[in-house]
Amino acid sequence: MLKKYWQERGALIEERLEMLLPAESVYPPAIHQAMRYSVLAGGKRLRPLLVMAAAEAVGGRWADVLDVACAMEMIHTYSLIHDDLPAMDNDDYRRGKLTSHKVYGEGVAILAGDALLTYAFEVMAATKAADQGRLLRVIREVAEAAGTRGMVGGQVVDLESEGKQIAHRTLEYIHRAKTGALFRASLRAGAILGGATEKQLGSLTAYAEHFGLAFQITDDILDIVGDAQKIGKPVGSDLKNQKVTYPSLFTLPVARKMADDTINKALGCLEESGLQSAVLRALVEYLAQREH
Amino acid sequence: MLKKYWQERGALIEERLEMLLPAESVYPPAIHQAMRYSVLAGGKRLRPLLVMAAAEAVGGRWADVLDVACAMEMIHTYSLIHDDLPAMDNDDYRRGKLTSHKVYGEGVAILAGDALLTYAFEVMAATKAADQGRLLRVIREVAEAAGTRGMVGGQVVDLESEGKQIAHRTLEYIHRAKTGALFRASLRAGAILGGATEKQLGSLTAYAEHFGLAFQITDDILDIVGDAQKIGKPVGSDLKNQKVTYPSLFTLPVARKMADDTINKALGCLEESGLQSAVLRALVEYLAQREH
Repeated sequence: MLKKYWQERGALIEERLEMLLPAESVYPPAIHQAMRYSVLAGGKRLRPLLVMAAAEAVGGRWADVLDVACAMEMIHTYSLIHDDLPAMDNDDYRRGKLTSHKVYGEGVAILAGDALLTYAFEVMAATKAADQGRLLRVIREVAEAAGTRGMVGGQVVDLESEGKQIAHRTLEYIHRAKTGALFRASLRAGAILGGATEKQLGSLTAYAEHFGLAFQITDDILDIVGDAQKIGKPVGSDLKNQKVTYPSLFTLPVARKMADDTINKALGCLEESGLQSAVLRALVEYLAQREH
Repeated sequence: MLKKYWQERGALIEERLEMLLPAESVYPPAIHQAMRYSVLAGGKRLRPLLVMAAAEAVGGRWADVLDVACAMEMIHTYSLIHDDLPAMDNDDYRRGKLTSHKVYGEGVAILAGDALLTYAFEVMAATKAADQGRLLRVIREVAEAAGTRGMVGGQVVDLESEGKQIAHRTLEYIHRAKTGALFRASLRAGAILGGATEKQLGSLTAYAEHFGLAFQITDDILDIVGDAQKIGKPVGSDLKNQKVTYPSLFTLPVARKMADDTINKALGCLEESGLQSAVLRALVEYLAQREH
């Protein structure tokens, strides 16, 4: 079921991203090439999927949230481009391809990230179908999740923690802020635009928080036991960068158990919401068996 | 008249920026210190002033556009932080102080820019007093002006042109995109939120375009004849970076004449608009005699 949904929705997202991003020939071409190179590198499109699934779960229409879904992928991609820079994680590969600064140089890579972040807000603000009050709320929440109380804050602490022994509390902060906040904002954006009640929104937010944590723990596990070919980057990079991870802090079997528990909590929140969403259920269950 | 207005409005802008930016102690402190360091370094606040003056010119209230005005200053500051990076212009001083990456390191400087850009959109979307439709239009236009059809596009071509001989047409594109677009968006944001008619908006947009060009030409002139103390950065940096400028392309006297002509065109557009704005008139006249 999930596979079919993912393929169908994924194709719609790819097509829409293709259309929204300026063509490579648009002046100045270097920046548009760099934007397209990173966005159209074939990610899992998990955040856009969550936007659409959340909207549909509360009775909204996927077509009405497609552009906001694409905007979330642009913000996610901008964060990857900047995280990969020499001044940050200094990574050469991402999604199986050379990173942006390796292809376009540091200057253009920084600007491509800037441009994607900026364009995401333009795309959101230009959304036609949406209720204006809800749309403004979504823009505000997405910006909050991408800023220093979310993604940027997490990246700062991650940067400061490299090569240091950090406490479980700090590791949790990093993940909640760096990856969790954007998952949470994706779920909430879809739910708000789809017309969720505040009670439904509360349960979906709790689901999203567990989803984000489970994603991160399984990501850490994959960096040890995964297949580099499937992940699209070398395994063992956390070890190389001396990053504290769930398996390094708790051992691999305990980290697996934590992932399973977190997935079960997410499923519990979904049940509590009273919403019938086979997709949201399947999406979090997939994390237990993901290979990339 | 302008001096008093600038002092009064400037103080309101400083106070509001102080309040909007998270305190230095907010976790993680490094990023909030870096954001405050660059924004509160005492710029001219020209873009926020233009937002407020435009709103008042069409009968709006300055208090209703104060947050959007501050957001424009955050976007402007983000662009300065990223432009100064080693991968871009590699500048050590800005507004008389060390640049962000010199104080906080490249990683945090990149993130401080990212955070300011993101926060600007959060602040705009959270604006209370505004008509929601107008606010969404402003967010869309500001994003467009900051993106690849504006600021980022101009910076890309600027980066590609360093050390090269470029045509007048390319120089014009760089300035229109890199600095002009944000001046234009500031004027339009204030006018739209203030309730301008489409005809008024058209005249103010033309005014803004001439304003932006005059600003850039006088900026180029200052880099040759200015006082480093007053400008807050070394003079002659364009020469050092082998940048093509109006004086280098046309000689100093011709560039001065071009600045005067452009200022007169801006004044003509203001007259055409039928709006009584002594402030907008004084602001563009000030460019002819600016010292920093």
